[in-house]
Order: sequence, then C-alpha cells, then structure tokens
Amino acid sequence: MSEPLILVLVVLEGIGVLAFAASGVLAGATKRLDVVGVAVIAFLTAFGGGTLRDVLLDRGPFFWVANEGWVWAVLALAIVGPVFLRSQHIEPTAKAMQWPDAVGLGLFAASGTQIALESGATPLVATLMGVVTAAFGGIIRDILVNEIPWVVSSYQLYAVIAFAGGWLVWGLGALGMAPVFAVALGAIATILLRVLAIVFNWRLPQWRLGSA
Amino acid sequence: MSEPLILVLVVLEGIGVLAFAASGVLAGATKRLDVVGVAVIAFLTAFGGGTLRDVLLDRGPFFWVANEGWVWAVLALAIVGPVFLRSQHIEPTAKAMQWPDAVGLGLFAASGTQIALESGATPLVATLMGVVTAAFGGIIRDILVNEIPWVVSSYQLYAVIAFAGGWLVWGLGALGMAPVFAVALGAIATILLRVLAIVFNWRLPQWRLGSA
Amino acid sequence: MSEPLILVLVVLEGIGVLAFAASGVLAGATKRLDVVGVAVIAFLTAFGGGTLRDVLLDRGPFFWVANEGWVWAVLALAIVGPVFLRSQHIEPTAKAMQWPDAVGLGLFAASGTQIALESGATPLVATLMGVVTAAFGGIIRDILVNEIPWVVSSYQLYAVIAFAGGWLVWGLGALGMAPVFAVALGAIATILLRVLAIVFNWRLPQWRLGSA
Repeated sequence: MSEPLILVLVVLEGIGVLAFAASGVLAGATKRLDVVGVAVIAFLTAFGGGTLRDVLLDRGPFFWVANEGWVWAVLALAIVGPVFLRSQHIEPTAKAMQWPDAVGLGLFAASGTQIALESGATPLVATLMGVVTAAFGGIIRDILVNEIPWVVSSYQLYAVIAFAGGWLVWGLGALGMAPVFAVALGAIATILLRVLAIVFNWRLPQWRLGSA
Repeated sequence: MSEPLILVLVVLEGIGVLAFAASGVLAGATKRLDVVGVAVIAFLTAFGGGTLRDVLLDRGPFFWVANEGWVWAVLALAIVGPVFLRSQHIEPTAKAMQWPDAVGLGLFAASGTQIALESGATPLVATLMGVVTAAFGGIIRDILVNEIPWVVSSYQLYAVIAFAGGWLVWGLGALGMAPVFAVALGAIATILLRVLAIVFNWRLPQWRLGSA
Repeated sequence: MSEPLILVLVVLEGIGVLAFAASGVLAGATKRLDVVGVAVIAFLTAFGGGTLRDVLLDRGPFFWVANEGWVWAVLALAIVGPVFLRSQHIEPTAKAMQWPDAVGLGLFAASGTQIALESGATPLVATLMGVVTAAFGGIIRDILVNEIPWVVSSYQLYAVIAFAGGWLVWGLGALGMAPVFAVALGAIATILLRVLAIVFNWRLPQWRLGSA
C-alpha cells in the first residue's frame, strides 16, 4: 500500500472512530452505565468493527494498537463526555449525532472495503468487510445495552448504504482509479447518500407479514 | 487433506449453511427486523459457527470466502424468503424447519470435528469445535433478537448430540476408518439421533433448584 | 518466557478459571438454563477472556487447548455444581463467590497484562488486554442470560481495578523486577484492592444526568 494512501486511511478511520465512540458514550450514559461501562462501550463501538475486520482478514496490528493516540482520545471522551451531558440533552444530542455518524459510516465502509481489497479479498468479501467495519461496532453497542441492534431493526438505509459504498470503491478501483481517490470518492458518496436518507427519511420496505 | 474429503466437507457444509440461514431468516422475520437485518442474521446464523471455529483454529480462508456462491445464496434466501412468509406461516414453518436444522446440526458437528482434527486438535478440542460449528450460529441469532439462546435454555438434546456425534467421528477415525467415511457416518448418526430426540421429545433433566 | 514464569502463569490462570466457571454455573442455574447451557456458560465465562486476548494477540495455543485438564474440570463443575445448588442457596452463594471472583480478577488481570507484554504489546495495550482477560468472560456470561453486563453497570470498582493492577505489573517490570515477581505482586495488589472495594462498598460516582 502506498504511503499517502495509508496516511489518508488512518486519518479517515480516526475521524470515524471519534464519531462512533461518541455514539457509544451516548448509549452508555442514556442507559446509566457506570463510568467504566461508558468507556467500555465507547471503546467497543469505536474499535469493534475495524478489529473484527482485521481478525477476519488475519491482519495486524489493529488500528488502535498501531495508533494508540486514538485509544487515549476515546478514553478521554468517555470520561469527559458524560460530565457535560444532561437528561434533556440526550434526545437532541442523539439527533445531532446522526451527522458525524453518517461521516463515520462513509469513512469506515470505504476504508474497510479498500483495506480488505488490499489484503486480496474478492469484491463481495471486501464490501462485506466494509459493512462489518461500519456496522459491527453499533451492533455490539446495542447488544451491550440489551437492545435489538438498531442497524438491523430500524428500517433505515444504513448498512445497505455502506454495502453500496463499498461496491463503488471497488468499481472505481476496477476502472483504474488510484485507490486513494477511489476511497475518498467512495466515502464522500456514501456520506452524501446517508445524509440524503436522513433528510428525506428514506425507509426500507415493511414486511407484509401481517397482511395475508 | 485428500481431495474427495475436501469436496464432501464443502458440500455438506453448504447444505448445513442453507438450513441454518433459513432459521436465521425465520427468526429475523418473526421479530420484524428489516430486510437488511434479516440478511445480517441469516448470514451470521449460517456462517457464524464455522467462522468462529476457523478463527479459533487460526485456519483460513473461511468457508464463505473460499466458496462465495454460498454467500450469494444466503443473500438471495434472506431477500426472497420473507416475501413468501406470512404471519400464520411462522409457527408451522418453525416446526418444519426442525428437520433441515437437524441435518445442519449433524453436518456441522461432523465436519467441524473433522476439520479440527485435521488441524491437529486433540479429540476433546476437536469435538468442542464441532459443537461450536453447529451451535454458535444459533447462539448469535438469538442474542441478536435479544433472547436467551435456545441452545442453552430449551432443555432439548441439541448441543449434547453434536458433542456425541463429534466423538463418534473421532472414534471411527481412531479405529482406522478413512476420514471421509468417518465424517459421513458421524453426520448420519448425529442427524438420526437428533430426529429421534425430536420425535420422542427427549428432554434434558430439569434442575431441582426449587425443590429443596 | 522463562520456565518458572510459565508455570506460575498457568497455575494462576487455572485458579482464576475455576472461580470464573463457578460464577458462570451460578448465573446459568439461576436463570434455569439447561445442563448444556450451564456447561456452555461456565466454559465461556471461564475461558472467554483469555481466548479473546489470545485471538487479539494472534497467540496460540489457547490456555484451554494447551491445558486440557481445565476443560474437563470446568465440565465437571458445570454438571456437578447445580446438583448441589438449591434456590435458597443462590443469594448466599453469589455473595460468597465475590471472594474467589476477586482472586480470579487479580490473577487474570496480572497474567493477561504480562502475557501481552511478553507478546510485545505496549503498556496501554497490555493493560487493556489484562482488562479483557479479566472482564470479558463475565460480559459474555451476562449477555448470554440477556442482561446488561454487571461489569459495565454495577458502579462497582472492578474493571478499573484490573486496569490499575495491569499498570502495576508493567511498572514493576519497567523498574527492573523479574516478570514472575511483578505478576505475583501485581496479582496480590489487585486482589487486595478488590477485597477492600467489596468490604468498604466503594462505588464509582453516579452520573448527574438527571440533576440539571
């Protein structure tokens, strides 16, 4: 992998990490986990997806091992964040969090797909790894606070957008674009798509289970 | 590992994959997960056990990476399956699903044990890997829909039959039988045992916790 | 790693394994899991933390693969334990279990940190691996019985003590102490700290979420 691409991937993953850590802090504080619990859930939400991807790809060292500063940043966020959080802030904060979360989604999906491609994965496996990177942290977060994961039950276009974004990253690369641009474009497109899905409240179709 | 044995193991694992994916689809649709959620749960139920086994054995590539067709098959099942599912179908479908699930149980337990033995595992570790292969997918499925896993709480003879089947596979091999036949016989015996357990409603003993 | 250090680490991890397995048996029996479920939860509680640590460090063979006797011991405990358990015993047993659990906490945190340091991990990563070793088994246990993990929601000083103990192990080693003594001292200090936390009912601060 080229030097600038590595740098871009690391920076992007770092920004996504903070957005996801913040969603973990919010979930943990809302459920009144203790300060250790908030740190644990922030850590797992932020690093869970990328770590599972790397375990599955038998790839190392992990992002948070190679870039230890982000671990300190997440720990700091988990300790300081709840101090400034009040009950009446939770709902507006969750709403406001949708935007950085969309950024995290795009960044993780694009970088996760590219990392898997660089490891020799096929397009399908690589895009699934992008989805794992983007969605698994949130799944662990919701399991920890004993809820059915939002990602699989919200009828929002979320994982499916990560999946589409991964295919775009692969497609651009297959068309000859340099990986660093393919990842950047793929991430931007994924973020935009997610923002559109939030703004226009796009939903997955409901089952007609009950209707027959 | 010999060529025909590899082929047999791949085909068996594939049949088991579809049975387990269907149980994931059913669980996801019953809980009204969205279409992405049904795909995620089908995928995790089908491939979770074998993937954890391979991660624990440090073995690769994963079944679904090496045989990508099954991923497409599971995705197709997850998208098409719920379209034909109606509320009043769920209970009879769940009942009908017991039979292919029994097939999956036997196939996963036998092939999982053999794969672990081929990786140099001791008999105990190999049979536990058979149980992991057969039971872990269902455990993830139930955790995802926020229920205590059926495998550990149903008082049915399920994991214990997988465990017994694994020992049979090992025993037949230790007696000098070619692995391909040991796996086939072990799988058949495990399936039969599970079918008998369903038909005669065999149960694990209840705790006498409350009685003293 | 030196021979006596390896021996000490194995013995310590074994004692911790039994304490954690017992807490799994108790949780499983309390929730009326079946006998297979109690064995599964005992196994995951006892070996889950060390196994995740080793998967994350890409290190093998696992403790329970290399020391198969402990697997048999945990299986025996899971089958025999509930036979002697009565409903009215559960609360006093859970209370009594705090003490061996404190021993397990100290042993896993200290040995987990040292094992990670021996694998070349930085101090922060190594202490986090100590926390993973000590706390992850309990997290799986509680997720399996469909509860928010006690470790993250009890406001008790638990994981944070494991974290502190890990730093002590690292610090003693950095000061030139032989690893075997650093681990022993670190484990003892961690156990003492946890015992003090139980005796004096030390708690993490409550969020002031509701108060503004």
